[in-house]
Amino acid sequence: MLLEQINQPSDLKRLKVEQLPTLAQEIRQYLIEQLSATGGHLAPNLGVVELTIALHYMYNSPDDKFLFDVGHQAYVHKILTGRKDRFHTLRQYQGLCGFVKRSESEHDVWEAGHSSTSLSAAMGMALARDYKGESNKVVAIIGDGALTGGMAFEALNHIGHEKSNLMVVLNDNEMSIAPNVGAMHNYLSKIRSDRTYVKAKEELEQLLKKIPAIGGKLAKTAERVKDGFKYLVVQGMLFEEFGFTYLGPVDGHDVSKLLETFEQANRVEGPVLVHVMTTKGKGYSPAEADSHKWHGITPYKIESGQVMKAVGNPMYTEVFGNVLMELASQDERIVAVTPAMPGGSGLLKFAEKFPGRMIDVGIAEQHAATMCAALAIEGMKPIFAVYSTFLQRAYDQVVHDICRQDANVIFAIDRAGFVGPDGETHQGVYDIAFMRHIPNMVMMMPKDENELRRMMKTAVDYNEGPISVRYPRINGTGAVIDQELTPIPIGQWEIVRKGDSAAILAIGPMIPVAEEASELLKREGLNIRVINARYIKPLDEEMLLQLAKEHLPMVVLEEACLAGGLGSAVLEFYATHHIFNQIVYPIGVPDYFVEHGSIKEQRAEAGLTAEHLVEEMRALLYSRGDNRLSRA
Amino acid sequence: MLLEQINQPSDLKRLKVEQLPTLAQEIRQYLIEQLSATGGHLAPNLGVVELTIALHYMYNSPDDKFLFDVGHQAYVHKILTGRKDRFHTLRQYQGLCGFVKRSESEHDVWEAGHSSTSLSAAMGMALARDYKGESNKVVAIIGDGALTGGMAFEALNHIGHEKSNLMVVLNDNEMSIAPNVGAMHNYLSKIRSDRTYVKAKEELEQLLKKIPAIGGKLAKTAERVKDGFKYLVVQGMLFEEFGFTYLGPVDGHDVSKLLETFEQANRVEGPVLVHVMTTKGKGYSPAEADSHKWHGITPYKIESGQVMKAVGNPMYTEVFGNVLMELASQDERIVAVTPAMPGGSGLLKFAEKFPGRMIDVGIAEQHAATMCAALAIEGMKPIFAVYSTFLQRAYDQVVHDICRQDANVIFAIDRAGFVGPDGETHQGVYDIAFMRHIPNMVMMMPKDENELRRMMKTAVDYNEGPISVRYPRINGTGAVIDQELTPIPIGQWEIVRKGDSAAILAIGPMIPVAEEASELLKREGLNIRVINARYIKPLDEEMLLQLAKEHLPMVVLEEACLAGGLGSAVLEFYATHHIFNQIVYPIGVPDYFVEHGSIKEQRAEAGLTAEHLVEEMRALLYSRGDNRLSRA
Repeated sequence: MLLEQINQPSDLKRLKVEQLPTLAQEIRQYLIEQLSATGGHLAPNLGVVELTIALHYMYNSPDDKFLFDVGHQAYVHKILTGRKDRFHTLRQYQGLCGFVKRSESEHDVWEAGHSSTSLSAAMGMALARDYKGESNKVVAIIGDGALTGGMAFEALNHIGHEKSNLMVVLNDNEMSIAPNVGAMHNYLSKIRSDRTYVKAKEELEQLLKKIPAIGGKLAKTAERVKDGFKYLVVQGMLFEEFGFTYLGPVDGHDVSKLLETFEQANRVEGPVLVHVMTTKGKGYSPAEADSHKWHGITPYKIESGQVMKAVGNPMYTEVFGNVLMELASQDERIVAVTPAMPGGSGLLKFAEKFPGRMIDVGIAEQHAATMCAALAIEGMKPIFAVYSTFLQRAYDQVVHDICRQDANVIFAIDRAGFVGPDGETHQGVYDIAFMRHIPNMVMMMPKDENELRRMMKTAVDYNEGPISVRYPRINGTGAVIDQELTPIPIGQWEIVRKGDSAAILAIGPMIPVAEEASELLKREGLNIRVINARYIKPLDEEMLLQLAKEHLPMVVLEEACLAGGLGSAVLEFYATHHIFNQIVYPIGVPDYFVEHGSIKEQRAEAGLTAEHLVEEMRALLYSRGDNRLSRA
Repeated sequence: MLLEQINQPSDLKRLKVEQLPTLAQEIRQYLIEQLSATGGHLAPNLGVVELTIALHYMYNSPDDKFLFDVGHQAYVHKILTGRKDRFHTLRQYQGLCGFVKRSESEHDVWEAGHSSTSLSAAMGMALARDYKGESNKVVAIIGDGALTGGMAFEALNHIGHEKSNLMVVLNDNEMSIAPNVGAMHNYLSKIRSDRTYVKAKEELEQLLKKIPAIGGKLAKTAERVKDGFKYLVVQGMLFEEFGFTYLGPVDGHDVSKLLETFEQANRVEGPVLVHVMTTKGKGYSPAEADSHKWHGITPYKIESGQVMKAVGNPMYTEVFGNVLMELASQDERIVAVTPAMPGGSGLLKFAEKFPGRMIDVGIAEQHAATMCAALAIEGMKPIFAVYSTFLQRAYDQVVHDICRQDANVIFAIDRAGFVGPDGETHQGVYDIAFMRHIPNMVMMMPKDENELRRMMKTAVDYNEGPISVRYPRINGTGAVIDQELTPIPIGQWEIVRKGDSAAILAIGPMIPVAEEASELLKREGLNIRVINARYIKPLDEEMLLQLAKEHLPMVVLEEACLAGGLGSAVLEFYATHHIFNQIVYPIGVPDYFVEHGSIKEQRAEAGLTAEHLVEEMRALLYSRGDNRLSRA
């Protein structure tokens, strides 16, 4: 086995070029086997085996910098840089991260998780190199999907202007997580289908250089004729217009050709874009056949490609997709908008049933949000279906375009709370803190599937501005579904458990945690009232005033960052109402980035468990010697 | 006077085309006169007089939708749509807004303030039109500067893909607020300098259409040859590659030519981009000569072009620029990064003194932030100089790229707090709420110029992650400047006035307000301690514990949104430390969007005045009957 000999990139360089395809096959097999047990981003990594080998063979990491956009396609890079022995811990608690992670290796120089950041990072690294007078290479590896993100364009525009020495590897697999959309995609397709010119290209470019410069009045005309001729023979003129030298397209599964192209790229002054064509899932037929499904995958059987399905109640995502179909069949104003996540957001059936009413804009959260504002202003009911973590990209558009114009946009915020193995780049724990302070915003979170359905109905009925429903990346509770779909009055909370020793205000999946803690505390003679604080904004002021009247000590529990969260909202409410003797103890995600693991492990680490809640309640109630406890 | 007859677009349509240049001259004169008294965005509006007339002459607002990107160039639109009589109230409290404002007129269909949103909005409006089966036109008017914002590209990409019927007017004045940067700018320059082909263009396009389609193996080759030929004669191939029909460039000060081009555009199926060349400041020689200075201007003398300068202490912006030069001369790691605001951010002298160490990325906040992260990771000390309101665009990059990687990026957040006449789109009141909850972030705000200098020194000395200094858009206090530049220990607050009746924790320009209120309350026998809470994160925990020990009732005062602000941070601190008997009353900007006016008026409206503070303190202290008051 060649792979056994490779523990560092220097080991790789000892191999002959002819041996590299064999190594690629070994790595591919290794990935298929390992991921069958751990799960992970199989298809993207199978697509970049040869590319990653070629990069490490040609360049000298970590002096030369590899920046993997999104960073989920760095498994091969991890294997080649000494992390084989830990690979079985992939995406597990305290194990290898599923993304690039600087603390893991000196070869991991830039972290990501969200897309389209690598070109900006490459520009920063190239500038720093030039300031320091160093000479290393900077290589960004970006997919065609990530290229639609606006910040990638901002970077292209800047890099092309500055003519910085750096290399962009465009890993073109004709799709992002979802089928690709956008004019850029059409443009790349045109290049791909037009490979007859590739061979002659270099010769013709040489020829072009030989056309003498013409001065005087005719100079510009001559320049344009030259450009026109160049357009005939050079692929990727769009990138050339942006100031890049375009090379390609090259077969991304042919190591020799990749190495040849990199050599060509090394001779170029200024920014160069190498257009590499790869096949997602390459070498594993189930993944090649359905690369969307196999983009990120749970454990599977290798032979059959059968995926281990978790049993359980339907996920909130699915419940959302279903209720949206019911609502859309009754209300023609409803359109769903997704930034490249139709599958992940539970919208595939919706798109089938209502062709034309699901708008996939590609990876473009800013555009999606602002487009929703305009749709709403013109009388439609846009549902912006988006993961909590990706909504971060549209914060300004939420403030400036949606809330400021008080547009009737509905936010369906999926993956709110901990997300498990994707880890810190994807945690949905900030949306309350970054949305709650925006005027005109209404925010809800359901305790179960039935309430999610009712909240979607509430949102569609609401015509007074933006409204959002956030829900977690977990299975529902198996709640009974009401026959009739009825809205929930704006700002109305619900008592889910009676008690007068103390109260727990909780939202979403923290409600079962609160109930469990209450059950445990009952044994100690404490009767805890559990409140479903399903409206994060506006608060249920009447209920808060009632709690103050009863002088009931309370804990506010949320799987969201404590700072600026629901707990703060309650504290602010009492303080601004001159109620200074109310005991409010907020529990939320502390001030750190929560790494990968299971949601259970993440909750345990952050202190969001029934056991921890019991301890906190005890500390709160006993240590104070509150005389209300005698009642309990 | 023609202008006197124009109160609605229908009046305009009664004029003959030959009369329009006369009207343009009258409007231009009107703008120059009016703005000499009110101030405002003179140069951009002088540039679009003919363009706006032509649009209203050709199309039927409000059925046809005009979307002005940024929205500061809609003065002519306002004049033509019945707002002449209120024009003298421009940008004043409860007067006409300096931007498009839906509540002002049915002709204002889309509001902005931040750039690059108009294309997404146009897409949304076009989609809504198509869903509703209507047939109105949708026209986005966007500057060449705004086109560099990533979300404009996201929209171009989506529009080109969907082939939506809409028109983009590219108002190309060869500059945004600052000299334009970016490859897109270079590309547009190339088109502009290459006008020889314009005349023949339409004929040649007709010719191209006549080339017969070729089937079979040769089809693609033939297509490419056709494309290559087209490239020779058609301008704007980059936009054509994106799926747009490109028309232009056309002289934006020639109404007839504009109307001709719009007629051409009306015949196009699918998205069309009309490239209009205008001169910023057109018709007023001081503004033509220095269009940056005259982009947004205070009142001036028409004849001399002399601008009324406010007298007073240097602005915080200037103090920042100066101290940065001092620091940069001692520390080679320092580079300043600006998203198209070198002048507004006080960096012009810096750029002169340290050529190459100020990086202007154009309107591209996301790219700027992420590039800063990479610069920092590679050992540089990037200073991201950005307005509070524009930093909203980079929220995700601050979370995901800078704070999550704990990169040593320094944020110089200008225009923090109220901004005066620019109004609600530009208020810098959210940055505390959207930054405070991000792990690893340090946040400071200075009480005066000297402290701003010390904070910049603190930031440069700090090597443990991201750190930010926010400062207001006002003159400094005239503070004495320390001879030696010394840092301030992280998390250390300062008592600026002694007292033991109550405490006011305040930041930045709220400190003088707190002092004034304290002075007034002294007459009532109350001694108020005023604390400069200059670290918003981390808090001065020692001082907070001391205040609790003294059981001193306190007000937290900030010119920032109350929800999630410094007041919340203090409430969270006490609550999580089981200190439930501490009286904390937060005062901040209430939950609404604060419109244009003077900063003084905005403060009065929001209740951030010494008078209001006195009332609040009285209500807090007397109504409670706190026995500590007897001491006072």
